[in-house]
Amino acid sequence: MLNGPNLNLLGTREPEIYGKETLKDLENNLKKVADELDVNIECYQSNHEGDLVDKIQNSRNNTDFILLNAGAYTHTSVAIRDALAGIDVPFYEIHISNVHKREEFRHNSYLSAIAVGVIVGFGLDGYEYALRGAVRLLNRNH
Amino acid sequence: MLNGPNLNLLGTREPEIYGKETLKDLENNLKKVADELDVNIECYQSNHEGDLVDKIQNSRNNTDFILLNAGAYTHTSVAIRDALAGIDVPFYEIHISNVHKREEFRHNSYLSAIAVGVIVGFGLDGYEYALRGAVRLLNRNH
Amino acid sequence: MLNGPNLNLLGTREPEIYGKETLKDLENNLKKVADELDVNIECYQSNHEGDLVDKIQNSRNNTDFILLNAGAYTHTSVAIRDALAGIDVPFYEIHISNVHKREEFRHNSYLSAIAVGVIVGFGLDGYEYALRGAVRLLNRNH
Amino acid sequence: MLNGPNLNLLGTREPEIYGKETLKDLENNLKKVADELDVNIECYQSNHEGDLVDKIQNSRNNTDFILLNAGAYTHTSVAIRDALAGIDVPFYEIHISNVHKREEFRHNSYLSAIAVGVIVGFGLDGYEYALRGAVRLLNRNH
Amino acid sequence: MLNGPNLNLLGTREPEIYGKETLKDLENNLKKVADELDVNIECYQSNHEGDLVDKIQNSRNNTDFILLNAGAYTHTSVAIRDALAGIDVPFYEIHISNVHKREEFRHNSYLSAIAVGVIVGFGLDGYEYALRGAVRLLNRNH
Amino acid sequence: MLNGPNLNLLGTREPEIYGKETLKDLENNLKKVADELDVNIECYQSNHEGDLVDKIQNSRNNTDFILLNAGAYTHTSVAIRDALAGIDVPFYEIHISNVHKREEFRHNSYLSAIAVGVIVGFGLDGYEYALRGAVRLLNRNH
Amino acid sequence: MLNGPNLNLLGTREPEIYGKETLKDLENNLKKVADELDVNIECYQSNHEGDLVDKIQNSRNNTDFILLNAGAYTHTSVAIRDALAGIDVPFYEIHISNVHKREEFRHNSYLSAIAVGVIVGFGLDGYEYALRGAVRLLNRNH
Amino acid sequence: MLNGPNLNLLGTREPEIYGKETLKDLENNLKKVADELDVNIECYQSNHEGDLVDKIQNSRNNTDFILLNAGAYTHTSVAIRDALAGIDVPFYEIHISNVHKREEFRHNSYLSAIAVGVIVGFGLDGYEYALRGAVRLLNRNH
Amino acid sequence: MLNGPNLNLLGTREPEIYGKETLKDLENNLKKVADELDVNIECYQSNHEGDLVDKIQNSRNNTDFILLNAGAYTHTSVAIRDALAGIDVPFYEIHISNVHKREEFRHNSYLSAIAVGVIVGFGLDGYEYALRGAVRLLNRNH
Amino acid sequence: MLNGPNLNLLGTREPEIYGKETLKDLENNLKKVADELDVNIECYQSNHEGDLVDKIQNSRNNTDFILLNAGAYTHTSVAIRDALAGIDVPFYEIHISNVHKREEFRHNSYLSAIAVGVIVGFGLDGYEYALRGAVRLLNRNH
Amino acid sequence: MLNGPNLNLLGTREPEIYGKETLKDLENNLKKVADELDVNIECYQSNHEGDLVDKIQNSRNNTDFILLNAGAYTHTSVAIRDALAGIDVPFYEIHISNVHKREEFRHNSYLSAIAVGVIVGFGLDGYEYALRGAVRLLNRNH
Amino acid sequence: MLNGPNLNLLGTREPEIYGKETLKDLENNLKKVADELDVNIECYQSNHEGDLVDKIQNSRNNTDFILLNAGAYTHTSVAIRDALAGIDVPFYEIHISNVHKREEFRHNSYLSAIAVGVIVGFGLDGYEYALRGAVRLLNRNH
Repeated sequence: MLNGPNLNLLGTREPEIYGKETLKDLENNLKKVADELDVNIECYQSNHEGDLVDKIQNSRNNTDFILLNAGAYTHTSVAIRDALAGIDVPFYEIHISNVHKREEFRHNSYLSAIAVGVIVGFGLDGYEYALRGAVRLLNRNH
Repeated sequence: MLNGPNLNLLGTREPEIYGKETLKDLENNLKKVADELDVNIECYQSNHEGDLVDKIQNSRNNTDFILLNAGAYTHTSVAIRDALAGIDVPFYEIHISNVHKREEFRHNSYLSAIAVGVIVGFGLDGYEYALRGAVRLLNRNH
Repeated sequence: MLNGPNLNLLGTREPEIYGKETLKDLENNLKKVADELDVNIECYQSNHEGDLVDKIQNSRNNTDFILLNAGAYTHTSVAIRDALAGIDVPFYEIHISNVHKREEFRHNSYLSAIAVGVIVGFGLDGYEYALRGAVRLLNRNH
Repeated sequence: MLNGPNLNLLGTREPEIYGKETLKDLENNLKKVADELDVNIECYQSNHEGDLVDKIQNSRNNTDFILLNAGAYTHTSVAIRDALAGIDVPFYEIHISNVHKREEFRHNSYLSAIAVGVIVGFGLDGYEYALRGAVRLLNRNH
Repeated sequence: MLNGPNLNLLGTREPEIYGKETLKDLENNLKKVADELDVNIECYQSNHEGDLVDKIQNSRNNTDFILLNAGAYTHTSVAIRDALAGIDVPFYEIHISNVHKREEFRHNSYLSAIAVGVIVGFGLDGYEYALRGAVRLLNRNH
Repeated sequence: MLNGPNLNLLGTREPEIYGKETLKDLENNLKKVADELDVNIECYQSNHEGDLVDKIQNSRNNTDFILLNAGAYTHTSVAIRDALAGIDVPFYEIHISNVHKREEFRHNSYLSAIAVGVIVGFGLDGYEYALRGAVRLLNRNH
Repeated sequence: MLNGPNLNLLGTREPEIYGKETLKDLENNLKKVADELDVNIECYQSNHEGDLVDKIQNSRNNTDFILLNAGAYTHTSVAIRDALAGIDVPFYEIHISNVHKREEFRHNSYLSAIAVGVIVGFGLDGYEYALRGAVRLLNRNH
Repeated sequence: MLNGPNLNLLGTREPEIYGKETLKDLENNLKKVADELDVNIECYQSNHEGDLVDKIQNSRNNTDFILLNAGAYTHTSVAIRDALAGIDVPFYEIHISNVHKREEFRHNSYLSAIAVGVIVGFGLDGYEYALRGAVRLLNRNH
Repeated sequence: MLNGPNLNLLGTREPEIYGKETLKDLENNLKKVADELDVNIECYQSNHEGDLVDKIQNSRNNTDFILLNAGAYTHTSVAIRDALAGIDVPFYEIHISNVHKREEFRHNSYLSAIAVGVIVGFGLDGYEYALRGAVRLLNRNH
Repeated sequence: MLNGPNLNLLGTREPEIYGKETLKDLENNLKKVADELDVNIECYQSNHEGDLVDKIQNSRNNTDFILLNAGAYTHTSVAIRDALAGIDVPFYEIHISNVHKREEFRHNSYLSAIAVGVIVGFGLDGYEYALRGAVRLLNRNH
Repeated sequence: MLNGPNLNLLGTREPEIYGKETLKDLENNLKKVADELDVNIECYQSNHEGDLVDKIQNSRNNTDFILLNAGAYTHTSVAIRDALAGIDVPFYEIHISNVHKREEFRHNSYLSAIAVGVIVGFGLDGYEYALRGAVRLLNRNH
Repeated sequence: MLNGPNLNLLGTREPEIYGKETLKDLENNLKKVADELDVNIECYQSNHEGDLVDKIQNSRNNTDFILLNAGAYTHTSVAIRDALAGIDVPFYEIHISNVHKREEFRHNSYLSAIAVGVIVGFGLDGYEYALRGAVRLLNRNH
């Protein structure tokens, strides 16, 4: 699970939109679901576009699937898109809130066209469904 | 669960994209999940924009949540949007394939801005996650 | 008087915008005004684009004027425009609320360019003024 | 009633479009209707954008409603919009001919989004209906 | 042969453009040509988008070629496009008049990009040429 | 001859572009040419859009032709266009400098489409040629 | 019959799209059809825009109809449009492949708006149908 | 200091946005600051575009700097831009509220590109800073 | 004087627009004016873009001014623009009819931005005024 | 005070535009003004988008106001906008030069719509006025 | 090596941009490099779009690679694109100056999308590098 | 030589496009060419926009020329553009693949307009030619 800029503020930033759970809570929950599904999950967050590119590149030999909420970089980063396209790891794109209700510039995503799927507006549950979907997809393909 | 135009062809239409399960299979699966979650689900499909408008209107007194895959009407129907906006029933927007990989005119949705959330590219599993998400949301709000 | 999709919900749908009068009330009021003006008025509502096209076509031999609130189809239906253009019956376009205050996609109308006139934001009174205007226009042209 | 540029030529300018009645005739008719409805109406016309802004500002303490045909300034004047937005007087926007049949640049109005309603293509009768609508609206709100 | 909205008015609607032959005449003529070419032809017309979608879906097992004049739905219906794309039956797109001489919004067609070919402005003869072309194409491919 | 905003500064404003002749010089020159051609010419300049509208309206009974340099109002005034369209007096549009070499927003003119002709970039000589052209045109039509 | 740039390569250029028949074959076929219909046909091809303009101009006194495939100049040549508009000879616009399936810039045609009709995607048969259509149209008008 | 349309209503118009100070208060404050800085300041307000053009022109021989809040004319007046460009007096552009938070059409300014600087959203203090900045700039250049 | 495509048809092509004078007549008239002004004029017309480029290039050592009506190439030819920009000879752009009244694509000119001036809608007189203007300009610069 | 990319080069980069003062000088000046106003100011500069996001996030508990010149990130960074929107600290947007005189892509700012105010083209003085404005605003709100 | 319009003027046209070497010099230099690399090179220049199309077509049986500077036709010629696409010969696109620094309309190239590569702004050296690159590419593929 | 994001994956990322040579190989090759040409070359790669800005700034006192492949940042980074514009070091822009064949958003480059030249689609050879070109340019200017 990769989280982009400002997601470290989860729980404190606009809680009426993003809820009261912190990033730590989210990561713990996801790990529980991962345990239940018998898979490993690594969690990483950064506000730096370059760090996310580095992380994505490094995942190319040891990762089966990426759960990605690139935050604001979703709308501006071709570099992250290229990193994802340059490795052989499928990914789901996740947004906590429904971006289609927000500003025009949030309606464009550089990532959607190369993602396997996209889930928006399901709150933190979106990560769980994405994790379950990823595991199911990998099982189906094996 | 409301399905729009051409979704009655599920399983026969471009199976490499949409899989081999038929609409009947999908509906049965959803009903099983509904049973497990102890909720009722009604399934309806139509190729007619007006029928979908009628159905949405009629749901306004006896439905807690709509799972909607409006198919092609997603991109062209203001009437369906108005019907959804005119009743007090929240809904998730679902697409089986990842519409962001397809033609430009499929990138616009009249429905996303008034949906609670959107899930695309999760195949038929998207319906299940939407159902689970809806139940969880309703429980949380009670 | 032809009313398009979702106008059957008048009185129940967003009453703070559309008021508390139902479609039935509106039709009765219009009939009273028609009686006063000594003309006949037929009222029809449908959520189906095709039904509205059929109805418009059928009016071509027995109708002097159409009062049309095509609702959402105003913004998406070339078929209704063609039906109106294909018969020899003039019409006024009516909207209850002021569409210019609403979403961008409601600012375009396929019908305005072939209407005699347009009245928006006068609430249900708009129908009455349109009826009076139509009668006055027909009398003037005889 | 406020009339904008070139409306002083009513009756002489393109009479096949605008009819043969002069601005004087229109003002007299409106005054008769006002008498019938037991309200006062003041009539003013100017070709000067600044004069119309002045007039609108001055109406803020002694006017209940404005009937406004801003003519060509409808499409170009942010100053008139600001004047209307800056006072607390509701208004209807009126156009004698159906502007939607005319050049592209006449399809944009700076005023519609802040008007109560708009009436176009009803000829000079549009003013009368706007007056009647305004009175009815004011009575309803009292 | 599938005809869309308002084509049932052929012969009565704007005869200076569409000629005096009725839809019945057209269907009879096409049947004669079909007889001459030793093929079967079924004729269907509807003003309802959903009906056309249904009809196209139903043709997928018993039809070799579709001659389609979708009328106004050509410019607005993604549902019909999807129905055509979802079955394995090739089709020609036909327009009686030259749509390129008409309003801007008639220049866009959702269907052309998936049609085998398009013929416009040949009047009712366009249907005949399309029929002959279809038969020739099918023979060539066998 | 009608001159619009800032043309009263001729000779002092950016003389490297507009030359050293003043508006007075220009008017005197034009009058000499008018004398030579045996016609009367009246000269008027204003920085006020409304004044130009008034002046154009007033010319409708006593003027055969207008030579118009509307300056900046060329690009923003629908009111002046309407005044010109509302009277029966043909006009030439004149610009001293070549507006096509300047900012994008100067490339649009509300007036050109209803002018008889346009002359730009001929310096002050443009007025003279327009005057000669107008007289020749009027003679030809008599 | 006029053919534009690169059509001299017919049969050798991308045969999977354009087929194996050469321009010579096409011209011979058309002449046979012309004989059958008892009309004369002259065939001309050039890669030069100016030559096509010359040829179109020269046809104005001795030609009843033009069958035109202007190839790439369809999308870029106002000069050919003007030549066609400047003479009194009707024409059909022909394209062998379905241009609507190709690049965006091929969707615009300077010629369609002044053609009698357009036929695309019928392969070389399109020329034959255009010839038959032209003869039928001329006979009908005599 | 030049103020454009509707700024005469300062203090009464939407005081929650523009504050309770009147134009008179603002002018008095600015004069005090001018006294402190030992410079003269003249204050002028008009709702008329032409008056502002006149005033700007007249300032060309006796003014060192203009503080300009052109209000709504900022977005529509090429004439004011030309007047400013035609004289040799530098100016700051001032807006009381933050125009970037408001309607799309307020984001374009014809004046910014030729101003020395722009200050928006500083309330009435913006005028004071602009005055101080102007004096500092003039002192620096001497 | 350089004339572009289709101008060889002057007098025969749409005489109600372009008048009855032929290109020969125009050239003779221009030569008379040239004699009167004591300058030489060479006349050339071609339908070929490349010929016009050649001609413009060849003029660079023996020509003081070009009078250019590039016809349709005005709107499409960067090559002619480059040829004009690449030599040191000033030119006027001429159009017989008022192109601003015609199709949208005629409103763009690749040449205006590098011309000294432009004259449109003055009929064949436009050439004469351009010639007189050119001579006056050259005399002024010597 | 936060400064974005390339502002560390102040004084050496294009000094004719940005002046000869270095970032150090600017910071010292601002600190002097802060002392005078009896407030604390912290200064930070980075070329890294992520660093600026980090810094903004960290300011949320110990900062009353941000003076922000985000440099090039103004036009491209949604991440910085989100960081600013996600904390509860108001900010002014500052640009040293007048960005409205520069390239088109510098006219868009992701930050202006959520700033309290914007000041551009006042040189380094802009920072001082922003500081003074911030202090005055904070005092007023207490 | 193919050169398009106005490149015959090399050395005389705007030498500060294009240098003082003539087309002859360039061709001689290229031939020397070709000798060094042991390949044959043919050089051709034309101002005529049709000639370039002809030349490209003729190269299809005896040419391994094309070095193409289509000059102004780069931005306007679909015919040249089609000729290049219709033969089986790879090509590099060359521009002497950096077209990205010039007018907007020079930023679009019809050729780049089907070229192997593009080199701009390397002056005449660009041809040499393109030649070396072509030879290396051909050697690598053998 | 500066390489941007994802270029560290050269040789492993999509080798059918980018070849099998690694970044190390490329750097070694370039150093050999540099030795041959008797110049020094420093090689640097980063996935971080801010690092590239830092590096470019630092080169301003000790570098004669930059060979820059900014990868994805080419299309999104104004900060890199500003860094390049703010120092006095010329640069060539390099892309390994032909970006014009790829997604629309890769057709825009913030860097091209301030580069000396651009070379795309020459594979890794592009770096060599750029190095040779840079040396030749520097020698020529000394």
